[in-house]
Amino acid sequence: MSHKSFNPHHRILMGPGPSNVNPKVLDTLSRATLGHLDPQFIGLMDEIKSLLKYTFKTESDATFVLSGPGSLGMEACLVNMIEPGDKVVICTGGYFANRMIQIVEKIGGQVVTVKETWGRAIEPQKLEDALNANTDAKVVAFVHAETSTGALSNIKQLSEIAHKHNCLVVADVVTSLGAIDVMVDEWKLDAVYSCSQKGLACVAGMSPVSFSEQALHHIKNRKIPIQSWFNDLNLLMGYWSGGQKRMYHHTAPSNQFYGLHEALLILKDEEIENAWRRHKENSAKLISRLKEELDLEPIVPSGERIPHLLAIKVPYGVDEAKVRVDLLTKHNLEIGAGLGELAGKIWRIGLMGYNSNEKMIDYFISAMKKVLDKN
Amino acid sequence: MSHKSFNPHHRILMGPGPSNVNPKVLDTLSRATLGHLDPQFIGLMDEIKSLLKYTFKTESDATFVLSGPGSLGMEACLVNMIEPGDKVVICTGGYFANRMIQIVEKIGGQVVTVKETWGRAIEPQKLEDALNANTDAKVVAFVHAETSTGALSNIKQLSEIAHKHNCLVVADVVTSLGAIDVMVDEWKLDAVYSCSQKGLACVAGMSPVSFSEQALHHIKNRKIPIQSWFNDLNLLMGYWSGGQKRMYHHTAPSNQFYGLHEALLILKDEEIENAWRRHKENSAKLISRLKEELDLEPIVPSGERIPHLLAIKVPYGVDEAKVRVDLLTKHNLEIGAGLGELAGKIWRIGLMGYNSNEKMIDYFISAMKKVLDKN
Repeated sequence: MSHKSFNPHHRILMGPGPSNVNPKVLDTLSRATLGHLDPQFIGLMDEIKSLLKYTFKTESDATFVLSGPGSLGMEACLVNMIEPGDKVVICTGGYFANRMIQIVEKIGGQVVTVKETWGRAIEPQKLEDALNANTDAKVVAFVHAETSTGALSNIKQLSEIAHKHNCLVVADVVTSLGAIDVMVDEWKLDAVYSCSQKGLACVAGMSPVSFSEQALHHIKNRKIPIQSWFNDLNLLMGYWSGGQKRMYHHTAPSNQFYGLHEALLILKDEEIENAWRRHKENSAKLISRLKEELDLEPIVPSGERIPHLLAIKVPYGVDEAKVRVDLLTKHNLEIGAGLGELAGKIWRIGLMGYNSNEKMIDYFISAMKKVLDKN
Repeated sequence: MSHKSFNPHHRILMGPGPSNVNPKVLDTLSRATLGHLDPQFIGLMDEIKSLLKYTFKTESDATFVLSGPGSLGMEACLVNMIEPGDKVVICTGGYFANRMIQIVEKIGGQVVTVKETWGRAIEPQKLEDALNANTDAKVVAFVHAETSTGALSNIKQLSEIAHKHNCLVVADVVTSLGAIDVMVDEWKLDAVYSCSQKGLACVAGMSPVSFSEQALHHIKNRKIPIQSWFNDLNLLMGYWSGGQKRMYHHTAPSNQFYGLHEALLILKDEEIENAWRRHKENSAKLISRLKEELDLEPIVPSGERIPHLLAIKVPYGVDEAKVRVDLLTKHNLEIGAGLGELAGKIWRIGLMGYNSNEKMIDYFISAMKKVLDKN
């Protein structure tokens, strides 16, 4: 018999995500599978909704999780909010905002691009200018924490500008949710999506989303039907609302949901504000030790950085890829490479969720010292 | 602290799916998470591809798994194969084929419907007639095992008719894969999708798919770009091909993939032909015991039945919903209700994957006897 079960290495995941999953979360995944119509499972879905409202800081009932990864969430938000022909302003300074452009083009939207330098926060004045020049724009889309560059934009301010110009807002909070302040209602983010495997310290494959009342109204009044069935918010709302009377949509990945539920409970137990603080404090420690002990620096100016995902300049003469391979093979430690314009120029170091603690910082600094031969 | 971890009941899942997951599969889900770019994980993806080729009986390299449930697979196959304006013939005699119609309409395809009575296999002559009347049709779509009615169509014959009329074929093998013969290459099925939680005895949330060379050629020569980014086969092929050089697409749900890999290995160890035989034999036993001991009969005529998913007539005067509730609450046993036209008229009883064995038949018959008061 050739049966060879898969036994993954126990990696330390300090790249852009997945980050290491809390063992309590992993433990729930193997529990007995429930049918998606089981009353107990429907109760679980209701609890997940309520925990996500806490996590997103929203009162909107249109808050739930999509049964696919964050990039499905990106497509779902855009395909619901945008009709073919709609003018959409997209602020981009990285790989993931560029993906928004690709998706909107596939939907048939008319894209106006606000370009920012990779590694910098979006300059709000540039959005203001674009909206002054495009008074017929309907939607503004941007990324909070640009995973490809380590830059954090002030999306509260970007959202204010968008609303002043009567636009609705689509915001990517994939790398921010659970790790840094995300205030969906206060910041008037009309459609937001995230992922499960970063700040939430859960396994990958789920995309929490939330839609404002204005977004729901906008979607209900579309002239052209939503092109996607799987992502159609009207159908999804029937599935996620109405308690025991909910409408069948798809077969939910029940064991994945056990994990998300546990991860969200753990976050609530810690209290999300404490989680935000923990991420900031550990990040500050990591940045200062990177500088002092390894002479490594973030490419993003202070004040524009994602605290928990650092894009670090590869020093002159160092073989970027070899360092990553050595960290992985000799120290069982995964960090990320650069994407797009930054390929070969940076490493991406994540200190997220379960991994945001001093032990991980120590481990990372010590491994990196050995690999860079700085002992 | 209000933390209350979720502890699911240990249900016996004999509805239309999910079916019970093999404990060996459940066990893999809790293993350490790997990054989606880890060389070990990329090796796992290659093994999954190869195991899926075995399961689908295909040599096509465009065989992989989507990171979402079977209904995402349905949308993915259709959105790649169909351009706005294309004429598509859809054979429908149930809820899931009707969903195909909804999706194709959202894509902008022109739907020609071949209607069959719910609970019957698609009559091949009806497809022949429709294609004679619609010589400009490009794609024919049908469901192999219609989960909503228990009817099994002869898709080998339907596919022959479609190809004779120069159409490509999209086939839903959600409820058939792993449980009954599915011969993708031999039957010339150009785009097929399935799910993980039925015949494969894995958890829900993944959709195995396969595309023929003709399908790939067709998709490469589209005039209108694929409307979906997440489901764009060109991008997905970059992610699933090329070994260590693969292109980033989304963050794969690694722990889910561990489960699928294990489930596929178990199926290969048994040998798929043996799994097909097991499902047929156990189904025959269940049908004869339902008749003899409970006087219950399938609505689908013999010869057109899905062996492992029976739609059973609710006897006159019996409260359909109460029986399901009693089975669940008193015997921890889940069966399915009717959908659409058959709501209230049938029960759906699955004997799939890990559950296709005599012990489950005994348990079911005994519980049903008690609930129907036939002891």
